[in-house]
Amino acid sequence: MKNLFSDIPGDLPDELLETLLDADSVRIERIVSHGHASPKGFWYDQEQHEWVVVLRGAARLRFEADESSVDMKPGDSINIPAHKRHRVEWTTPDEPTVWLAVHHG
Amino acid sequence: MKNLFSDIPGDLPDELLETLLDADSVRIERIVSHGHASPKGFWYDQEQHEWVVVLRGAARLRFEADESSVDMKPGDSINIPAHKRHRVEWTTPDEPTVWLAVHHG
Repeated sequence: MKNLFSDIPGDLPDELLETLLDADSVRIERIVSHGHASPKGFWYDQEQHEWVVVLRGAARLRFEADESSVDMKPGDSINIPAHKRHRVEWTTPDEPTVWLAVHHG
Repeated sequence: MKNLFSDIPGDLPDELLETLLDADSVRIERIVSHGHASPKGFWYDQEQHEWVVVLRGAARLRFEADESSVDMKPGDSINIPAHKRHRVEWTTPDEPTVWLAVHHG
């Protein structure tokens, strides 16, 4: 059994990515950010769909196509279709932000 | 955007199941229990694997094969292989228990 809120380092120079489940059809990851954002001008352009939920902290995602952004607080979930270019614009510096990501398709 | 902690009814005669994502390879569900348990003598025997995490509340799962049980608190996650017979032995009556389940394979 793995606890998603355990083993969060106090000092986090880079985002922390851990694979919780790697199966044929799906990969589940825990991501811990602490004030991190995607590099300037960088956009994720992923082969798979990604369903993601913020469990702790706060974050802002930005989408290239329509220049929209979404603010996410604990419990907020969204499905990002494959190749929908997006970036993490902001995560709160006040506390770690814990994401759960389900890569699928 | 869907928030996993919103729209939790105060009165919950039955467990509440909602499909958050239904894709080719994966189905993601929110389950809200409030003191519910599986019927006496009932065992889940599922075609798919199920990765599940407790996000709020507390629960106890029981497995038929080795008669083991696991107590789950917020953040605790476990992968239950297909056809591993299990039941929900207990969920706390003190507050709603919010589960996130990823059915896969």
